[in-house]
Amino acid sequence: MKSLTMRLMHLGLKAYFVGDMNVPPVQQGDLLLVSQGPGFFSTVDALVLIANNENCKTVVFTSRPDRLKARDYDQVVHIPAQTMADDQKSASGVLPMGSLYEAALFLFFEIVIISLRDQLGESAESMRARHTNLE
Amino acid sequence: MKSLTMRLMHLGLKAYFVGDMNVPPVQQGDLLLVSQGPGFFSTVDALVLIANNENCKTVVFTSRPDRLKARDYDQVVHIPAQTMADDQKSASGVLPMGSLYEAALFLFFEIVIISLRDQLGESAESMRARHTNLE
Amino acid sequence: MKSLTMRLMHLGLKAYFVGDMNVPPVQQGDLLLVSQGPGFFSTVDALVLIANNENCKTVVFTSRPDRLKARDYDQVVHIPAQTMADDQKSASGVLPMGSLYEAALFLFFEIVIISLRDQLGESAESMRARHTNLE
Amino acid sequence: MKSLTMRLMHLGLKAYFVGDMNVPPVQQGDLLLVSQGPGFFSTVDALVLIANNENCKTVVFTSRPDRLKARDYDQVVHIPAQTMADDQKSASGVLPMGSLYEAALFLFFEIVIISLRDQLGESAESMRARHTNLE
Repeated sequence: MKSLTMRLMHLGLKAYFVGDMNVPPVQQGDLLLVSQGPGFFSTVDALVLIANNENCKTVVFTSRPDRLKARDYDQVVHIPAQTMADDQKSASGVLPMGSLYEAALFLFFEIVIISLRDQLGESAESMRARHTNLE
Repeated sequence: MKSLTMRLMHLGLKAYFVGDMNVPPVQQGDLLLVSQGPGFFSTVDALVLIANNENCKTVVFTSRPDRLKARDYDQVVHIPAQTMADDQKSASGVLPMGSLYEAALFLFFEIVIISLRDQLGESAESMRARHTNLE
Repeated sequence: MKSLTMRLMHLGLKAYFVGDMNVPPVQQGDLLLVSQGPGFFSTVDALVLIANNENCKTVVFTSRPDRLKARDYDQVVHIPAQTMADDQKSASGVLPMGSLYEAALFLFFEIVIISLRDQLGESAESMRARHTNLE
Repeated sequence: MKSLTMRLMHLGLKAYFVGDMNVPPVQQGDLLLVSQGPGFFSTVDALVLIANNENCKTVVFTSRPDRLKARDYDQVVHIPAQTMADDQKSASGVLPMGSLYEAALFLFFEIVIISLRDQLGESAESMRARHTNLE
């Protein structure tokens, strides 16, 4: 989610990572993106409840839509990759715990960014120009 | 510096904390605020060098202006409180290491914020309305 | 809470800040310290519920014990300073929102650290030797 | 580097992420791992200098070993993937800036972790038991 926030900012959009210092209050018209790979994290669920109360739209990325709590998600994006909800099955992959999900999510976000870049009329150069030099 | 970033945002200003996800590149017209209590942190100094190269204005808060490296600071704010540069003297305070400096800096920033609030025509209410609800 | 974590580590104790990378699971024998200035943050409350389920001891710092949800707190520490739960009263202080609470909590933690230092037989020198040099 | 820190901790090793709260000072016997995809980040280079002065071993991951400053690296690991040092060439990839490098580094670290797991006699179960439940 951190790299997604950074790339959305590179596209010229107003994007904030929850926990960073300059996060404004969510309200109607905002979009909250959350990842709950195994279907439930109590702190993430708490944020979704706040967003629901403020009529903020929400999208969740998860490998286990069946384990999501009943919240008002405007979109559920199913990333069918192993997380800690499935890593103890006999057929589990070689990567530990949720690593496969993290990798799949990263790649999915990159594709979203490229697609958004074209739709917004942005270019590799305009994105690059917004990359911080403080590092 | 984190709480200062948050309060500047509450005042309606564009403020970013270096290390957060949506930090843009610094350039002419920007202002970089850094704290170097004991006079020198190598990573902070590296950021100041970048700001200097980009003609970004800089302000440093420190208890030891005499230990600052020769950089182009537009303003040096002297906070005369104990840091790790002075905590091994016989007359050192009861608080460990740089705690006194941290407390002094916090209070100083609060006064700056109140003063800025009045100059910007902001109010306790308008600041409060910008406080995040995602917590 | 961040500076408290750092100082507890300086005392030679195993301390972790929730959200940092190397946080282990909480279990029986651990102590979770949380701050809920105004009495309730949904994400913090979610962490307390987890600690309760794992029989981990918990301490909460708050200015409004009356607004705490019913959880198994082993200790409630009352810091009677203004937070966002009280900043809209006629008699509210000059500092915005929860700044007074933050300052009071900081000072309280410093006193706790000094007291712990003496009880643990640590010194200003031994604490200083554990301060990171990577900055 | 963050996910690597977390996985090393899951393996039972003492691992810290620079910038987190409980990072001890580096000294002889420690190993500092840094990533400088394009070959140089001023803040990262500053940390390497500190490590060099403390006789701490260092490993750097980079796509451009030719752009590294002359420091005492005990190991230079070459990850030959596009970063911001190469994203403006005619043959640059479809992913923006350093995304390909980030993905390659992630996969490389996962393979390292699996290899380390076997060498340390750890298992998927023992690693999982060290994953935090505070989320």
